Amino acid sequence: MRATVYEGNKTFKVIEKEIEQPGANEVRIKVAYSGVCGTDVHIYHGMMDKRVAMPQTIGHEMSGTIDAVGADVSGYVVGDKVVVRPLDDTKVKPSDKGFNHICEELNFIGIDSPGSMQQYWNVPAFVLHKLKENTDLKLAALIEPLSVATHDVRLSGLVKGETAVVLGGGPIGLLVAMVAKEVGAQVIISEVNPVRIAKAKALGFDAVSPIDVDLVDYVHGKTEGRKADVVFEVAGVQPALDVMTEVAGIRGRIVMVAIHGQKKEIDLFKFFWKELKLIGARVYEKEDYEKSIALITANELPFEEMITDVQPLSNIQQVFENIDKNPDGLKVLMDCQL
Amino acid sequence: MRATVYEGNKTFKVIEKEIEQPGANEVRIKVAYSGVCGTDVHIYHGMMDKRVAMPQTIGHEMSGTIDAVGADVSGYVVGDKVVVRPLDDTKVKPSDKGFNHICEELNFIGIDSPGSMQQYWNVPAFVLHKLKENTDLKLAALIEPLSVATHDVRLSGLVKGETAVVLGGGPIGLLVAMVAKEVGAQVIISEVNPVRIAKAKALGFDAVSPIDVDLVDYVHGKTEGRKADVVFEVAGVQPALDVMTEVAGIRGRIVMVAIHGQKKEIDLFKFFWKELKLIGARVYEKEDYEKSIALITANELPFEEMITDVQPLSNIQQVFENIDKNPDGLKVLMDCQL
Ligand SMILES: NC(=O)c1ccc[n+]([C@@H]2O[C@H](COP(=O)([O-])OP(=O)(O)OC[C@H]3O[C@@H](n4cnc5c(N)ncnc54)[C@H](O)[C@@H]3O)[C@@H](O)[C@H]2O)c1
Ligand SMILES: NC(=O)c1ccc[n+]([C@@H]2O[C@H](COP(=O)([O-])OP(=O)(O)OC[C@H]3O[C@@H](n4cnc5c(N)ncnc54)[C@H](O)[C@@H]3O)[C@@H](O)[C@H]2O)c1
Ligand SMILES: [Zn+2]
Ligand SMILES: [Zn+2]
Repeated sequence: MRATVYEGNKTFKVIEKEIEQPGANEVRIKVAYSGVCGTDVHIYHGMMDKRVAMPQTIGHEMSGTIDAVGADVSGYVVGDKVVVRPLDDTKVKPSDKGFNHICEELNFIGIDSPGSMQQYWNVPAFVLHKLKENTDLKLAALIEPLSVATHDVRLSGLVKGETAVVLGGGPIGLLVAMVAKEVGAQVIISEVNPVRIAKAKALGFDAVSPIDVDLVDYVHGKTEGRKADVVFEVAGVQPALDVMTEVAGIRGRIVMVAIHGQKKEIDLFKFFWKELKLIGARVYEKEDYEKSIALITANELPFEEMITDVQPLSNIQQVFENIDKNPDGLKVLMDCQL
Repeated sequence: MRATVYEGNKTFKVIEKEIEQPGANEVRIKVAYSGVCGTDVHIYHGMMDKRVAMPQTIGHEMSGTIDAVGADVSGYVVGDKVVVRPLDDTKVKPSDKGFNHICEELNFIGIDSPGSMQQYWNVPAFVLHKLKENTDLKLAALIEPLSVATHDVRLSGLVKGETAVVLGGGPIGLLVAMVAKEVGAQVIISEVNPVRIAKAKALGFDAVSPIDVDLVDYVHGKTEGRKADVVFEVAGVQPALDVMTEVAGIRGRIVMVAIHGQKKEIDLFKFFWKELKLIGARVYEKEDYEKSIALITANELPFEEMITDVQPLSNIQQVFENIDKNPDGLKVLMDCQL
């Protein structure tokens, strides 16, 4: 079988290795597609070398078909279409209070242990979610990032008729915007990259650049002065942190989706004055996956537009080099059988 | 009648003036006690001269007895013991979404308009809360700051069996700690002033100095590793902001009670990683006042210990000068009939 491994120093290798039998509690998946995540690009840049045991196969956004079933696994048969929720929470403790998806000793599969950028992949059965037979496996590779979005929107408490402002129209921001719109909210996307603004507009969104328009005035005008009920910070930059507390209306909820490696300046006075809430959000829970699977199965949102490139797995080095050169593309999938 | 006015430049004057008739929708209160709030000290320091129309009577933490009732007021009679919830929300708009207590054009009585540091005070009837006949009017002057605490604890969602860490054992922090304990939570106070630590201990609290002990280790040890379910930031300093994200456990809620005039550095990564929540809290709502009135009426918490001095209103200048010299005292009441 073909596999890829990250070796450090911005280098992936494509290797040949034996197909392994799944353990008693595992299944072997014939991987169909594996999406490239911002985190994978971080790994490629060497920024997570402490967590990734090199050489290691990475990848955690995937779809596939069950190829072999371990002796103790029930409920799955060869041929089932599945996705993996890449959270190994077997080391959960009482102090995690039942929040298994963010438990202190969480193993994130594809980062902390081998991932999906290979032809066949053995995983414990408890990470599986089954798909309907007619599911498009390309779209199914979006279920993992889409679940970030369903989680974020669920934690925000967004309801129909409210206004959501999404700061950052990258892959995660666009998926958040789609889920927010599906809830019945008015959605406004703020994005600085003109190609991504055009893309967001083509997808039917109200998208503006905070460089061209005063975002707070704009949202004020679109809401009869209520401003945003919910703000999703999905840009990860200081200007987004500055505007999030301005654009939120009274008792607004701000969901912190972006990952900020350093301490950042925040206007806490606004939190006091308007009784704002900041809600940290990380990955997803089982129900967020189920919601995403339902959305992908229904296929009524413009998910296909999210996939801007599909490349053979064997091109992995080229794929990562190109992503670095192109900030316009959204989701690149690797075809893991090629 | 005797009144006091803030004239700017760290100066209060005691003046004599005519007793006024209440307007049709007003009552006249014979003020019993008026507590000195940190905000009043801010005003004295000239830091709110833009909001305070000098010369102006300030004060918003009070108790008293109705002395005259306006023509259109019903439900109140002369002799009723009352407190004022000093929020004039008559300019509320739809964009305030029903959160009247923090509406955009809120008039905070005693800051934006004349307050209680005088012998008689006319107020609109809608700001009144009636007290039981046997209520101690000294304790009743604590209802306003106590309502800040009941509001904060309510917004935190704190429940019995959880652990609350209170950062800052000043008057507001101690009241928050009392209300949190009354809910049935384990309460740990972090305070740097040795006199206030001793006071907190005398009130029966587990109180430590973050200079002497590692607060995170301490709370970890007291919670079998769960750390704080709720953190109240009532200190208003950067070290408290640094520790709040550390001492909070998974899905911990941090209530921002302190008022931070400048942008501050916050560890947003911890918000993401542990799915923390930051909850801005400002003043109180009607139900928080009702809860405080019930607590003061029951008088089962060590409220009396909060009052460290009672001074005649005519000493106002001296009172403010002394507060500046003494960071150990908690609540100073002015006896408004002397
Ligand atoms: N919470 C989680 O579990 C989770 C999961 C996945 C990704 N993330 C994080 O979500 C964030 C977004 O991920 P992504 O893959 O979409 O990243 P991305 O970098 O592709 O998207 C960020 C977008 O923000 C835009 N932007 C930059 N400055 C802006 C500004 N001032 N105003 C508005 N937009 C601006 C950029 O042009 C870009 O399109 C990242 O921080 C990522 O680490 C979090
Ligand atoms: N949200 C609201 O509506 C509201 C209402 C009233 C007061 N407040 C705010 O609440 C805060 C507290 O009010 P207060 O009157 O009790 O003030 P205070 O200044 O008397 O109390 C703050 C306490 O924090 C202590 N402290 C300082 N550094 C510390 C540290 N590193 N760790 C722990 N404790 C530390 C101080 O010694 C002091 O005792 C203020 O910021 C005030 O403006 C907010
Ligand atoms: Zn990812
Ligand atoms: Zn006050």
